[in-house]
Amino acid sequence: MNELELIERLTAGLPRNASTRVGCGDDCAVLDFGGMDSWILFKTDAVVSGVHFDSVAAPEAVGHKALGRCLSDIAAMGGWPTHALVTIGLPVPFDVEWVQRVYRGMQAMAAEYDVAIVGGETTASPGAMFLSLAVMGTVPRDRCLLRSGARPGDAILVTGDLGGSLVSGRHLTFQPRLAEARWLATHFEVHAMIDLSDGLAGDLRQVLKASGVGAELLASAIPISAAARKAGGGVGGGERMGAQGKTALERALTDGEDFELLFTMPASDVVRLTDTWRGQFGGLKVGCIGRIIEGCGLHLRGVGFNRSLDLDGYVHFQGT
Amino acid sequence: MNELELIERLTAGLPRNASTRVGCGDDCAVLDFGGMDSWILFKTDAVVSGVHFDSVAAPEAVGHKALGRCLSDIAAMGGWPTHALVTIGLPVPFDVEWVQRVYRGMQAMAAEYDVAIVGGETTASPGAMFLSLAVMGTVPRDRCLLRSGARPGDAILVTGDLGGSLVSGRHLTFQPRLAEARWLATHFEVHAMIDLSDGLAGDLRQVLKASGVGAELLASAIPISAAARKAGGGVGGGERMGAQGKTALERALTDGEDFELLFTMPASDVVRLTDTWRGQFGGLKVGCIGRIIEGCGLHLRGVGFNRSLDLDGYVHFQGT
Repeated sequence: MNELELIERLTAGLPRNASTRVGCGDDCAVLDFGGMDSWILFKTDAVVSGVHFDSVAAPEAVGHKALGRCLSDIAAMGGWPTHALVTIGLPVPFDVEWVQRVYRGMQAMAAEYDVAIVGGETTASPGAMFLSLAVMGTVPRDRCLLRSGARPGDAILVTGDLGGSLVSGRHLTFQPRLAEARWLATHFEVHAMIDLSDGLAGDLRQVLKASGVGAELLASAIPISAAARKAGGGVGGGERMGAQGKTALERALTDGEDFELLFTMPASDVVRLTDTWRGQFGGLKVGCIGRIIEGCGLHLRGVGFNRSLDLDGYVHFQGT
Repeated sequence: MNELELIERLTAGLPRNASTRVGCGDDCAVLDFGGMDSWILFKTDAVVSGVHFDSVAAPEAVGHKALGRCLSDIAAMGGWPTHALVTIGLPVPFDVEWVQRVYRGMQAMAAEYDVAIVGGETTASPGAMFLSLAVMGTVPRDRCLLRSGARPGDAILVTGDLGGSLVSGRHLTFQPRLAEARWLATHFEVHAMIDLSDGLAGDLRQVLKASGVGAELLASAIPISAAARKAGGGVGGGERMGAQGKTALERALTDGEDFELLFTMPASDVVRLTDTWRGQFGGLKVGCIGRIIEGCGLHLRGVGFNRSLDLDGYVHFQGT
């Protein structure tokens, strides 16, 4: 059983209530408490030693990543984070200085986005250290971006370069795209948005599933990071890196932990967007990588090929 | 370094913001988003295998306990829970049926209190299984009960019987005192409240510290549970149970995981409270166990003795 199947089983029939606008299945839960101009966003996530970071990672970077993952999900709704709680599980004995440095990493990021860290819990944890974060935020009622709004004819866009994040260490240093997402939600008719945590193909498939549509990606338009090119060899769709290897394109499609934004919008707005985007956000790129189509499935088009990507988001090129 | 010292170090200098009414240091964070008649409560907690439950615990009870701990903290503010998120860390491979039963335990409790479970996260966790919950709730602005409101002359009251929760298994089956706390906040001038998770003496000390006051407990008034009597032997303050043992009274004072309410209110209201309480809440007891005094420190009075309890809340009777 993979993670998605497990989540489907666990979330079947969970209790909801009247103030729940969006429960499971988007980047954050969306809650309506009435009386406010905004909805409240609610998100949790965890990092575990040996899974999300290793013993050579700087503790500040571990804290940065733990909070950053949640903030990236708040960004994906077009929202802004306000408060965080931190639960930390520690093998006993633990290194107090190491734990304090983890907190310093979280504090620095929290301060940067005016997020208050308002409490938490400490517990013993035999075996692995874990850091579980819960974050609240707000989003204006008329600007909340869901996964479910993609429409046939929409252009699909991504920020930044993709792939190789775990190899290059970028997964420990990324910045959540909060300002970028808020700007997009304010100035453009964004139909759907998600942050890229599990890899472009897998995350895009979540958008397609939620929206009941399909998509075509243009292989030559996928922005492949330098780390993915270095780790993955050639950039062509057909070049293999041995039995366990991935091509650079496969890395960009499936590596995960990019924490960039993927969004869809009317194709007619793309030129205005790329024009007005330029020069903002520290030179971060944005680009169109494909389009939403009727039907279902995720297809990759290139010169002389048109391949379907499988359900896991993982690319099996042997089926061409 | 004990847990309290660690928490003090970690929470020093954490970032706050304008919407934070109460950050670290109470049962929940209290947030003011404006526009609402209520404040929002925000709480996180975790249970870890081998720490908070063992392999013989029913999985439904593990889920019940994980959510119940957070709901007990919401109760301690006089609030009501609304939404929860669940992060689960699982050693690989795991037993899907076991995990589904944990969820069923959480779902049953959530449904009972109209709490929506609105998402979460699953992750691998080498070594120990953990379940980290984040809960939101609301509390009317004028009825939020903090630890910091105790005043000299207040009576100190507790619900239920104390001690022996880990021995009897009650720590896996307790009900959070949500209805009781809301009723108290609605009908009485409660000055301070906390839920008993770390033991009466230790938790009362948190109230004293937050309020800048001291307290006297009356040994004969402490409600000792049957489990504490059985596990702890005699009920007298001076009877010992061997080098590692505790008396029944010591158990009631220090065992932890009772998840009852401790609160303070004007002494003049105690008779009216016990009168109107009677016959409600399924026969749950409430009783006065002492009083708040000027100064600091926690004192235990009995026939022929008046002892100070030490800083950890643990009772050292040898110092009489």
